[in-house]
Amino acid sequence: MELQDYLPIWKKLTPAQQRQLKDGTVGRAVKKGTVLHSGSADCTGLFLVRQGQLRAYILSDEGREITLYRLFERDICLFSASCILHSIQFEVMIEAEKDTELWVIPSRLYQQIMEESAPVANFTNEIMATRFSEVMWLMEQIMWKSFDKRLARFLLEESALEETDLLKITHEIIGNHLGTAREVVTRMLRYFQGEGMVKLSRGTVELRDRTKLESLAEG
Amino acid sequence: MELQDYLPIWKKLTPAQQRQLKDGTVGRAVKKGTVLHSGSADCTGLFLVRQGQLRAYILSDEGREITLYRLFERDICLFSASCILHSIQFEVMIEAEKDTELWVIPSRLYQQIMEESAPVANFTNEIMATRFSEVMWLMEQIMWKSFDKRLARFLLEESALEETDLLKITHEIIGNHLGTAREVVTRMLRYFQGEGMVKLSRGTVELRDRTKLESLAEG
Repeated sequence: MELQDYLPIWKKLTPAQQRQLKDGTVGRAVKKGTVLHSGSADCTGLFLVRQGQLRAYILSDEGREITLYRLFERDICLFSASCILHSIQFEVMIEAEKDTELWVIPSRLYQQIMEESAPVANFTNEIMATRFSEVMWLMEQIMWKSFDKRLARFLLEESALEETDLLKITHEIIGNHLGTAREVVTRMLRYFQGEGMVKLSRGTVELRDRTKLESLAEG
Repeated sequence: MELQDYLPIWKKLTPAQQRQLKDGTVGRAVKKGTVLHSGSADCTGLFLVRQGQLRAYILSDEGREITLYRLFERDICLFSASCILHSIQFEVMIEAEKDTELWVIPSRLYQQIMEESAPVANFTNEIMATRFSEVMWLMEQIMWKSFDKRLARFLLEESALEETDLLKITHEIIGNHLGTAREVVTRMLRYFQGEGMVKLSRGTVELRDRTKLESLAEG
């Protein structure tokens, strides 16, 4: 897979821009646990995930974390190049959750092409809108529903009732219990899975980290 | 003041684009309390505030609100035209907090110009990054900072906006702004009153000790 396969707008670039990107982009391989980017001081460049998994999160002064979203194969991380957008005023951390291979497009190169190319600027817009939507979803869930807490509590109660860590239950039934749409349950369970709290398989939810679930349920 | 004074990128538009914008943009005046936009179903257009004040907020199923940000003279509201960005998947409400005059640029017109003009696309990017930063700030406030700090900050901001120490505002409305139940607001305001920071009367909150409020807000 070549660089152009990761950039849906490749064909809308001029030959000169394509050449600049090919020459300027650097391949990188990092081990699980590597922090690839920490806050705005560090304007590394755009990351294109070739293989593996990255996690974007924010960090409080007290060292608490919130996962904002994850990036998988073919995803693009904009906030590792946040200096290209002057108005981004928050600090995102990026770490590799698995051994990861990625392309890095240097920030200045990308910025220069974005300034002259409407397709690149609009593509960047869509990436930002996607991340913005993910963050809004998370904020609504946490603030209004305390849905993360309620779901953690429900899973622990079910586990106590059934005397097992392997719950045979569908997302739809959980949704019915909690008065929430199945899609919302699925999305939050995937978030839990990403955080190592549960493991999902067809028709089952396995509790993998009771301590973490309990601290969430009581929080 | 003409339309071009509100668009810093005006000079980077072609004469044809300038003419299209001038012909297509509509002036509008609304009374305080008017809901100008409610969610994505309604893709009204970009709002440019000429005079007055708009509030962008989200609304839960149960009718609770959180203020995301405010828009003042010369500010541009993107989310009233969220259909131009396919990846925006959340619903923002916009209401006039004061009698407001605005320009409305129809969504399709703006989208068409954005698709062909790199300066317009990059300008749009910066607006979105600004709003994204405001929302991230808010999320960090909510999740990490305690409510007393947020309330103190809110009272100081309202006081600066209204240019008075005597705020005419109910606990319920404060709760809507901060995504908190009225009871929580009342309890914290009484605590503030006990500390001599505010004085409460029916329908008003008077700021009595700005220094103390400020040190709490910054703490």
